[in-house]
Amino acid sequence: MTDDLADRLREVLDGRWAHLRRAARQKLDSRFVTVPGETGDQARERISRLVREIPPEVGVTAGFPAEFGGADDPGGSMVATETLAQVDLSLMVKAGVQWGLFGGAVYALGTRRHHEAWLPGIIAGDVMGCFAMTETGHGSDVQRLRTTAVYHPETETFDLHTPYEAARKDYIGNAARDGRMAVVFAQLIVGERRHGVHAFLVPIRDDRGRPMPGVTIGDAGAKAGLLGVDNGRIAFHHVTVDREMLLDRYGQVAPDGTYTSSIANDTRRFFTMLGTLVRGRVSVGGSASAAAKSALTIAVRYGESRRQFTAPDSEREVVLNDYLAHRRKLLTALARSYALSFAQEKLVRDLSDALAGGEIEDRRQRELESRAAGLKAVQTWNATRTIQLCREACGGAGYLAENRLPGLKADTDVFTTFEGDNTVLLQLVGKGLLTGYRDAFGSLDGWGRAAFAAEQVREMVLERTAARSLITRLVDAVPKRGDSVGLTERGWHLSMFEEREKHLLEGAVRRLRRGAETKRDRPFDIFNDVQDHVLAAASAHVDRVVLEAFVAGVEEVADAPVKALLDKVCDLYALSTIEADKGWFMEHERLTPARAKAVTAAVNDLLTELRPRMRTLVDGFGVPDAWLNAAILREEADRQAVMSSADHAAAGEEIVPIG
Amino acid sequence: MTDDLADRLREVLDGRWAHLRRAARQKLDSRFVTVPGETGDQARERISRLVREIPPEVGVTAGFPAEFGGADDPGGSMVATETLAQVDLSLMVKAGVQWGLFGGAVYALGTRRHHEAWLPGIIAGDVMGCFAMTETGHGSDVQRLRTTAVYHPETETFDLHTPYEAARKDYIGNAARDGRMAVVFAQLIVGERRHGVHAFLVPIRDDRGRPMPGVTIGDAGAKAGLLGVDNGRIAFHHVTVDREMLLDRYGQVAPDGTYTSSIANDTRRFFTMLGTLVRGRVSVGGSASAAAKSALTIAVRYGESRRQFTAPDSEREVVLNDYLAHRRKLLTALARSYALSFAQEKLVRDLSDALAGGEIEDRRQRELESRAAGLKAVQTWNATRTIQLCREACGGAGYLAENRLPGLKADTDVFTTFEGDNTVLLQLVGKGLLTGYRDAFGSLDGWGRAAFAAEQVREMVLERTAARSLITRLVDAVPKRGDSVGLTERGWHLSMFEEREKHLLEGAVRRLRRGAETKRDRPFDIFNDVQDHVLAAASAHVDRVVLEAFVAGVEEVADAPVKALLDKVCDLYALSTIEADKGWFMEHERLTPARAKAVTAAVNDLLTELRPRMRTLVDGFGVPDAWLNAAILREEADRQAVMSSADHAAAGEEIVPIG
Repeated sequence: MTDDLADRLREVLDGRWAHLRRAARQKLDSRFVTVPGETGDQARERISRLVREIPPEVGVTAGFPAEFGGADDPGGSMVATETLAQVDLSLMVKAGVQWGLFGGAVYALGTRRHHEAWLPGIIAGDVMGCFAMTETGHGSDVQRLRTTAVYHPETETFDLHTPYEAARKDYIGNAARDGRMAVVFAQLIVGERRHGVHAFLVPIRDDRGRPMPGVTIGDAGAKAGLLGVDNGRIAFHHVTVDREMLLDRYGQVAPDGTYTSSIANDTRRFFTMLGTLVRGRVSVGGSASAAAKSALTIAVRYGESRRQFTAPDSEREVVLNDYLAHRRKLLTALARSYALSFAQEKLVRDLSDALAGGEIEDRRQRELESRAAGLKAVQTWNATRTIQLCREACGGAGYLAENRLPGLKADTDVFTTFEGDNTVLLQLVGKGLLTGYRDAFGSLDGWGRAAFAAEQVREMVLERTAARSLITRLVDAVPKRGDSVGLTERGWHLSMFEEREKHLLEGAVRRLRRGAETKRDRPFDIFNDVQDHVLAAASAHVDRVVLEAFVAGVEEVADAPVKALLDKVCDLYALSTIEADKGWFMEHERLTPARAKAVTAAVNDLLTELRPRMRTLVDGFGVPDAWLNAAILREEADRQAVMSSADHAAAGEEIVPIG
Repeated sequence: MTDDLADRLREVLDGRWAHLRRAARQKLDSRFVTVPGETGDQARERISRLVREIPPEVGVTAGFPAEFGGADDPGGSMVATETLAQVDLSLMVKAGVQWGLFGGAVYALGTRRHHEAWLPGIIAGDVMGCFAMTETGHGSDVQRLRTTAVYHPETETFDLHTPYEAARKDYIGNAARDGRMAVVFAQLIVGERRHGVHAFLVPIRDDRGRPMPGVTIGDAGAKAGLLGVDNGRIAFHHVTVDREMLLDRYGQVAPDGTYTSSIANDTRRFFTMLGTLVRGRVSVGGSASAAAKSALTIAVRYGESRRQFTAPDSEREVVLNDYLAHRRKLLTALARSYALSFAQEKLVRDLSDALAGGEIEDRRQRELESRAAGLKAVQTWNATRTIQLCREACGGAGYLAENRLPGLKADTDVFTTFEGDNTVLLQLVGKGLLTGYRDAFGSLDGWGRAAFAAEQVREMVLERTAARSLITRLVDAVPKRGDSVGLTERGWHLSMFEEREKHLLEGAVRRLRRGAETKRDRPFDIFNDVQDHVLAAASAHVDRVVLEAFVAGVEEVADAPVKALLDKVCDLYALSTIEADKGWFMEHERLTPARAKAVTAAVNDLLTELRPRMRTLVDGFGVPDAWLNAAILREEADRQAVMSSADHAAAGEEIVPIG
């Protein structure tokens, strides 16, 4: 049962793609939900069947051009992935591999002839494929992967080869079982010239599912989660690939071997290619937050009904959510979850607007990539933390597969390291900020450029990332550092987030500049000694991006009661974020000890104020019970059935309730 | 390969029960280690077979009296459990249920006749049993469990009954498959009188494994981890239990129904009974830390060989452990792991000395129970955090079952909520401190006693928990709050930990006293509004207990180089703990902003200094490779075999390494 306010909250959160979210809630019925306790084989069989049965209304393939069966709606496909994540994360990843990574690469890196030949089959799910980028030896440092593709003009073919064990493609979704084709990333070599990493469309299995000659396919075996995804390993032993199969949008090889590209610089070209795949990261971040919402819904609803220990003033036992410590864990996580929802919606909107506009201005492209990287890292880490605390908040019940939480935790766990390791991504964000986005996505050996970075940043001014005029007005409305400013002044929150980021960045620059002078003989140390500082600056930046998106999003809300509630939630997000880093704020005199204590008191007041709204806030996420699929949320009757083993059902039913 | 220093470190960590740890390393061969990717049935079959094959030298049953087949060495059995935890956590839990909980209850709560009749069979593993305490509706609040045992004088039997669904026993190990007997906790009722919770030894299956009449047994089904443990649900429908089967050490029922007990107060008797089961918590805490050591060993060794990204000054790629951010995560976790090792060893020693001494003085018993509760909570939470970061530190490889980390995470996850929910346990510790241990283990409705607590604590003086004279000397040697004091002055660390605990406790008392006056009408709120404060005081207390044990332990070390290394590790533990809570220390003027920054700088210096010792420190844990059982630690050759699916091995082998 959800109250009216919850429905109106949901409408706000549903955002621009509300129609897709509604369609998913209708079309993705119990047939699609998780099955606790499946074996790996059962899960793989079920998921590879279901992935082809996802109703088109859900919009998973909306991102492809209409002419090939898509809907020219990339934002829609990212939102569709989020909804799948709440139904079954294996299904979401399987779909993400097929249409996001594999299909997305063919579309973004290929040209007309590839599109016409392959997109229809890929979109229909007739041609299942892999995104073969990561190698055992090179995950984060993709630019240095070792698979080679040597061009032979005489045969007009490439010789695709895995030079040694550590160069095999690893953790590849769709490889172990279903993949017929693969987009393989390899070092393109023509004659003596190496042209850097390029993508090739390669058949890896024949019609009868046997590996093609020279292709060795292994199974990554059991994993922590995502049992329904057939991750595998692929090695190539001098496999012949037709010239036409080079996905040649950004680099072409003529029959005679002449190499041409619109982007002269190899590194620049490489990161431009990667840039076209940014949607994957956006989808992973959004899916992680979607899973966290499911976990919070389960834990909060359980905490509303589960009672433990009696209060001194009554024989009635106390519901878990009434305990301050319990509320603190769940409500602050709820506030973060709301904040990230607005940030994600904004990112998807901005990205899809940019894509709709055709050619994206370079600087804008870099900013979106940076935001996607930062939000992916923050959302996936937050999901891991949040789901863990939700599982603990449900006690022993939270450990049982029938209550969903173990699956949510295990399935999303890998999100912190795939589609870019979170630490590496945050470092990318940090370096982007240091160099004012210039070359942020150049190769990661930014150490050498530290000194340069220092120059760049001296006149750095933080750019507001949302509702600029509003944010500016709010910030200017409050005196800086005044102890007198009200703790719930939004402008104060914004300036606290801003000043922290600015100060951290400037400090990093100072240290880098000093290092560039004193450590000329140890270039690696110049950056490495400041790594923690740069990472702190990056996450401070993402915090600001999130708060600005939250503030801008709330401002847009017309529905007064909903807006009032969201304002409180925004207060809680801002204040609990400041509280969590109060050490830094005091260290840098942005917070006096007295005011720091006041912040904690204010957080606790908000927890009391929002206590009656906990249920409303999770209902606002709009996750259908069928998707939650948790036994502890079902009627006692159902649970009894779950408990009594069939042969003792009779005895079980004889148990008569007293009172 | 471990260096000489590592061997000497290991000897120190092995502590008083080194002989058992050595025996385990020898006797627990590859036959006992985890099997990645097993189904639940396979795991249960394997574990219930192996649990009976654990070599006696390992000492799992050492805690029982020699006359029945034990070795009168309770400390030994707790240490043995830790070693099992590094081999296979399902095996550890299965053994813990059989000999720790089930056997332990029969021994501690039963009397001579129970011991003679049952202990030999239990110790031999012929009589497998359950510890049926937790109910679906009552886990943490065990005192209010609902199962009833009504005595009938005419038949001299108890009528054991599950009044309704939520009163069924739940999550019970050994129930779903192997258990023949169960120690069942139920409300004893004689005539009109209720005597509180008592334990009964009850047959739940017949010789052919069928549930006894009136007993309904269900399967808890799939879980996040511990696949080898057959957790189940038990309900009793008016089951007749012979009078002799009451475990009557603390409460006796005469044939005519006359009830007698050496402890008049029901609550007091109940917690005395629970107190005898403290070993379980000690074993769980120690096992969690043991598992964290396995995870750290895997992550640190991987980080020593895994390279990613090239430094600007060389073509050679950088090993992960050289990155500041990576080192920060792993080395601070290593320091915590060492600190907790010393605290655990001390707890086991103190507890086993106390038990050896026969009757334990009441106050001492409460202190040991409190320390066991606090260390269980801190160690299990730390294990969850540490294993998670180790899994992330290994990237995609850390997500594969073949690399062990997923199993370590999933298997230990439940430790945070079983054998007492961590938050409830910390609250127990907090209340114990507030009331100066008096009645700490009385029922948890301490709210009413808040005012009383306030009185107790006014003249509270913290008691040093280890090497009193040494600690006192160190603390007195440094001026309080002097910015001049060296950051690595042990006395300064100790006094920082001490002052934080004392201040938090006194603050909680002040707030409770105020609440007792202003909230007379809302007794629940008196305590609840201060819950977060009390929990903070409790964890500050545990931090101090850990630091004092670490300091005392290092002091005992004769081997100079080992001692020097451990001193550095202790510096890192103390300073990173202070850094993590620097917000509090600044809020309460125990740290100036400048000094707080200096602490961070000092931590980073220690990370650089200890960097060359990372491998030594994990080798010091002495976890055999066979137990680690992680593919990423094996030779490339092995890994190749893992990769190539048999039918393509040939092709796989043809892959020739280049240069």
